[in-house]
Amino acid sequence: MDSSSLVPIIDTIARQARQASFSLMSLSTAKKNAVLLRIAALLEAEKEYIQTENDKDLRLGKEKGLSTAMLNRLELSEAVIASMIVGLREVCALPDPVGAIRDMVKRPNGLLVGRMQVPLGVIAMIYESRPNVTIDAAALCLKAGNAVILRGGSEALHSNIALARILQRAFAEEGVDENAAQVIPITERKAVNIMLQQEQYIDLVIPRGGEGLIRFVTETSKIPVLKHYKGVCHIFVDKDADLHKATPIILNAKVQRPGVCNALEGLLLHQAVAESYLPVIADELGKNGVELRGCPRCLRILPQLTAAGDDDWGREYLDLKLVVRIVDSLDEARTYIQQYGSQHTEAIITENYSTAQEFITTIDASAVMVNASTRFNDGGQLGLGAEIGISTTKLHAYGPMGLEELTTRKFVVFGQGQVRS
Amino acid sequence: MDSSSLVPIIDTIARQARQASFSLMSLSTAKKNAVLLRIAALLEAEKEYIQTENDKDLRLGKEKGLSTAMLNRLELSEAVIASMIVGLREVCALPDPVGAIRDMVKRPNGLLVGRMQVPLGVIAMIYESRPNVTIDAAALCLKAGNAVILRGGSEALHSNIALARILQRAFAEEGVDENAAQVIPITERKAVNIMLQQEQYIDLVIPRGGEGLIRFVTETSKIPVLKHYKGVCHIFVDKDADLHKATPIILNAKVQRPGVCNALEGLLLHQAVAESYLPVIADELGKNGVELRGCPRCLRILPQLTAAGDDDWGREYLDLKLVVRIVDSLDEARTYIQQYGSQHTEAIITENYSTAQEFITTIDASAVMVNASTRFNDGGQLGLGAEIGISTTKLHAYGPMGLEELTTRKFVVFGQGQVRS
Repeated sequence: MDSSSLVPIIDTIARQARQASFSLMSLSTAKKNAVLLRIAALLEAEKEYIQTENDKDLRLGKEKGLSTAMLNRLELSEAVIASMIVGLREVCALPDPVGAIRDMVKRPNGLLVGRMQVPLGVIAMIYESRPNVTIDAAALCLKAGNAVILRGGSEALHSNIALARILQRAFAEEGVDENAAQVIPITERKAVNIMLQQEQYIDLVIPRGGEGLIRFVTETSKIPVLKHYKGVCHIFVDKDADLHKATPIILNAKVQRPGVCNALEGLLLHQAVAESYLPVIADELGKNGVELRGCPRCLRILPQLTAAGDDDWGREYLDLKLVVRIVDSLDEARTYIQQYGSQHTEAIITENYSTAQEFITTIDASAVMVNASTRFNDGGQLGLGAEIGISTTKLHAYGPMGLEELTTRKFVVFGQGQVRS
Repeated sequence: MDSSSLVPIIDTIARQARQASFSLMSLSTAKKNAVLLRIAALLEAEKEYIQTENDKDLRLGKEKGLSTAMLNRLELSEAVIASMIVGLREVCALPDPVGAIRDMVKRPNGLLVGRMQVPLGVIAMIYESRPNVTIDAAALCLKAGNAVILRGGSEALHSNIALARILQRAFAEEGVDENAAQVIPITERKAVNIMLQQEQYIDLVIPRGGEGLIRFVTETSKIPVLKHYKGVCHIFVDKDADLHKATPIILNAKVQRPGVCNALEGLLLHQAVAESYLPVIADELGKNGVELRGCPRCLRILPQLTAAGDDDWGREYLDLKLVVRIVDSLDEARTYIQQYGSQHTEAIITENYSTAQEFITTIDASAVMVNASTRFNDGGQLGLGAEIGISTTKLHAYGPMGLEELTTRKFVVFGQGQVRS
């Protein structure tokens, strides 16, 4: 399709979403929850249909030579469908973030001024292979009172269209505007370009996927974007670290799930502990299949270590690889993190009260941690209930985004005839 | 200058700002306040120097044929300098928004998780003629712990450079990084283009000025932008309005300062009151020099009224002009506001409890008001102490932005060795 024929299609989807958002804005909590449970019931009832459509994507993916990892992400197995259903029930159980008025004050002229939590309006999600995001994102957007436009990966098109049918049937059966969640059924990237210009209809864009996709969205969009490019997370083992805490934390952060954004990518060792601790942690990491790359000072302690190259510093391996550097002080660790970190997650291992406080206060990242694994930077783990993504944008949300981050606050003013003098 | 020579200049300014932001992040409240008072003292002491430089801009402006209104905005009169000094003292008196940890919870695994209010980092302000914005914006950014890059209008260049010297002297005398506030001394628009690509150094862009400038910034920037394009504000006089309240509110909203974004631009009258009230309010507005333009139903009641043209609906006059339409219901008023409003400020005049609640809940604007003038949508009036602008972006800030909106919240996690299972 050429752009001129795509424009009216995308324009219609966006306009319909805006229109739906008006009715969602004041939808009752009971109605939103009823829709969520209806989606869960339909996923259960229509499992076969979903898997038939998913099979088409899997077959095409195999023909195209997708990697096993990609095919795994694409598959809507029994377990994945079950977890989508559990997710819907969890979102149903979360408190409705919409409608609360907070911080109400009385101004000297008698005006009552407060801030009401309200939906953002229309959210566009742009994501890659996992089709379960279609349901997860739709559920969170709906609970926060937003309409959502979903644009998944081309390799998941049949699956996403099938899931969209489920969503729309659930809306229809509950008497909610069917355009509350729409899937863009066009795989051409031009469709995304066109959508990203529609700031009159769309309030927020959330891209999830590889750095290339996210950079493309950020550079193209006129609409605000919440995203993180990557997660280059560090752990700093301070001179006052309890090394019995350090080892399990480092192993957990690196090994438990190396392919995710909150996994450990760089280890900083205070010089006072490096001599004794580097051999210990190198051995433990080695036993877990991790390939270490060290700075010149590390190599003086452990000559058999691979030397880190210039491009190892600040690299997001997403793999069982780890770069390690010895630093002289917290200051040096901070300077390193400022240069090579991605403002995602940074942790310190220390028993020193003042050092912990200084780290927490002066390190700029969406989550800063003392004596805990970087893997905890996750909406569920930090108590948000669920997450739609992690932002390192700082604006609006810094860190995991839950239901509250899918809303905004407007000012409400109750007067008795006041005018401004 | 060609772009290739501009790039390193802008790059250096942005990099210096990022570097300064690291030290500002943990600057004490006492030090920030000392700097603010030092700036105030220097403005007082260097008044003559400032006015000499400002005279150069005024002379050049007259030669270029700037309007009297433009020259007025450009002038750093005694009164304007005095109000800058008062502004600095007010910002000094506001509570420091940085460092508080809120919503701390204990997770089931014992992790303590809270959210710490932290500076955004580096803010770029892009504005037009008023040079006093240079001081006002620098003061707010500093108090919130941010570095700021200031890019004022070309017609105010001498004034802005003079004010930048004052700022930097104050920083130096207080031992604070002089790059905490920098003025871009280049008037070419290309300099702005280059700056708007520097997302690695700049966290937020706030443009203030005409719609053309703001659209240019939004379309060019890779960095998040907080802005409002325009203020098309309405008052809906409901069938249950107390008309003794309606008249002074409408007059205040339209007449007190017609050239600002929270002034009234459209009046909606419920059909039940239109017949009797339109002649009254038309007469009052006429006495105040306001030119009314009405819908066909208005013209049937007051045939001498000017008929509104298609482009009058949703127009930001910024002038003593007002468009008026008769509607059948709150629903119709809401549909009108959805179509023609700018999500800035919307008000209802009513004594009906349920109608007021419905208006507050279902109208999407940065401030929604009952029985009060739209002119109250202002940071000072709503209790923020001061404002750096008004956002209708919804993301991060919706409405006036004060010190809190110049910060963000990062997650802080206090562990005792926890790992993720």
